[in-house]
Amino acid sequence: MAKLHLIATGGTIACMPSKNGLVPGLGAKDLLGYIPNGEDMGCTDLFSMDSSNIQPEEWQQMAKAVLAAREHCDGIVITHGTDTMAYTASMLSFMLQNIDIPVVLTGSQYPIVRPDSDGRINLKNAVTAARSLPGGVYIAFGDAVMMGCRAVKTRTTSLNAFESINYPYVGAVANDRFISLTEPRAMGEFSCFVDIDPGVALIKLIPGTSPLFLESVAGCGLHGVVVEAFGLGGVHNFRRDHAESLKKLIQKGIPVILASQCLYEASTPDIYEVSHSLREAGVISAGDMTTEAAVTKLMWVLGHTRDMEEIRRMMNRDYCGEIAIHD
Amino acid sequence: MAKLHLIATGGTIACMPSKNGLVPGLGAKDLLGYIPNGEDMGCTDLFSMDSSNIQPEEWQQMAKAVLAAREHCDGIVITHGTDTMAYTASMLSFMLQNIDIPVVLTGSQYPIVRPDSDGRINLKNAVTAARSLPGGVYIAFGDAVMMGCRAVKTRTTSLNAFESINYPYVGAVANDRFISLTEPRAMGEFSCFVDIDPGVALIKLIPGTSPLFLESVAGCGLHGVVVEAFGLGGVHNFRRDHAESLKKLIQKGIPVILASQCLYEASTPDIYEVSHSLREAGVISAGDMTTEAAVTKLMWVLGHTRDMEEIRRMMNRDYCGEIAIHD
Repeated sequence: MAKLHLIATGGTIACMPSKNGLVPGLGAKDLLGYIPNGEDMGCTDLFSMDSSNIQPEEWQQMAKAVLAAREHCDGIVITHGTDTMAYTASMLSFMLQNIDIPVVLTGSQYPIVRPDSDGRINLKNAVTAARSLPGGVYIAFGDAVMMGCRAVKTRTTSLNAFESINYPYVGAVANDRFISLTEPRAMGEFSCFVDIDPGVALIKLIPGTSPLFLESVAGCGLHGVVVEAFGLGGVHNFRRDHAESLKKLIQKGIPVILASQCLYEASTPDIYEVSHSLREAGVISAGDMTTEAAVTKLMWVLGHTRDMEEIRRMMNRDYCGEIAIHD
Repeated sequence: MAKLHLIATGGTIACMPSKNGLVPGLGAKDLLGYIPNGEDMGCTDLFSMDSSNIQPEEWQQMAKAVLAAREHCDGIVITHGTDTMAYTASMLSFMLQNIDIPVVLTGSQYPIVRPDSDGRINLKNAVTAARSLPGGVYIAFGDAVMMGCRAVKTRTTSLNAFESINYPYVGAVANDRFISLTEPRAMGEFSCFVDIDPGVALIKLIPGTSPLFLESVAGCGLHGVVVEAFGLGGVHNFRRDHAESLKKLIQKGIPVILASQCLYEASTPDIYEVSHSLREAGVISAGDMTTEAAVTKLMWVLGHTRDMEEIRRMMNRDYCGEIAIHD
């Protein structure tokens, strides 16, 4: 039987009530107690954090903890708060490319100490998935298993909190069995890269967004920006000229990734006239990437290079299944 | 039979091919040609714009055009690009509260000049809905009819591009008949207010968001900010202390509305300890409002007052069905 390892990072699943609201309290050993034969698993207490506080520095620690655990196990489950789990899963997909064992993130909407908590089934399902999945980074939540780089938290409260965006679900877990729904991706050689550049901003446009606000990215010492534009990738180009503002950023060496604020389906700045000036200015389309993937990929790419053409080439390349429609 | 009026503003539905991509070309009279008995309707050519360029100034013009048309009709259909239609529908819901005739926005994913365009059925369905709906602002798209203040464009390409978020669909159109799915809202007295303050920013957080970037809102001359936080309303509160940054904005008289970046379900900063400092700092919860509604409502509220407690009271109040879960 596959040897599994649990890395605990906190999150609702590990929460206990306090006078100021829920705070992470349970450790990895406590969580193993909820897994059938959990005593046979290894475990690591990495941290005990609300995932709203997970930041690029924690991602680096998580990747290193996965590397260490990989030496002596066949699959890893990471318990994690739901709020930033999709960002973490995307980043680990880039940091730990072609990892040869499954790394399955899970968590819950209710603390596992509650008898009716979804954490109990989620943790069990994540373990079941980790025994069957090929190498890669995944999220298991509810009965769904999805690519880490395609997951988005779409619901604040319901038990089916995550969706796989613009990509099929990898599998499902039912009655303690993993049901595969897609063919495994072709795998390349494993590589680990954690020297990411956290200096990335995300801007979601609204009608009336101030060009000054867009341009302020440059003054904040940031090195890249992802813009959630309108629809397929539209921005204002008169009165408040966003195209001009984004061009200024690009001329300062700050790459601009153009994504959509629509949750589903790909963006492209090539259909409407209003977006053509963006192309000329040099924006890079996020294609069908989730915002979570676009943002973390940009941090990862900026850790490699600040050369604009190299950034464009890398953003367009598919590293772990995160992009299928691109420039 | 109810007398209807069409206000054309451009959008894909009115687009024609050009060498630089699609540009709005058809006018209101052209569009009437696609409606059975369209020649009996009045019409206004308000503008001919890609909706990525619709801004607060256009909303003011649209509200005034609705007011003018209301003098001599029983229902209004507005053709509009899809990219910002949900923002426009939200804003018109606030600007034209308790309007006694239906104002139905529609558009399409493909230009109506294409024989297979969804614009043909969407326009016909919007007209059918406008003959049956009670007063209010709506979006009719595909076969779905929804409250304008609850609509979000969730798909960049598919024909069912809009969803009603955290609120039931008002109705559906099938075989040229409107099927009502909800009870009409109780109506108050009609009021029109267009002196909105466009000085609002939207910030969607990512792990690692720079506090400097959050604080830059103040330096851009903006008067309010909506923050799409993590999950139920989480932000970083160490290393990069977002709670501290938002507190600084509030102390400068800039109201901070805390929304969720999850598409579905309400936010509340009251469940987790990590959010409690936000409450103490004075953030206002967006509850179950869409981001589109929160942003346009804040512009509308700031047009009335800059007093923080009055802003809080108004943001929490339900004006047109936009909020049911609030502080």
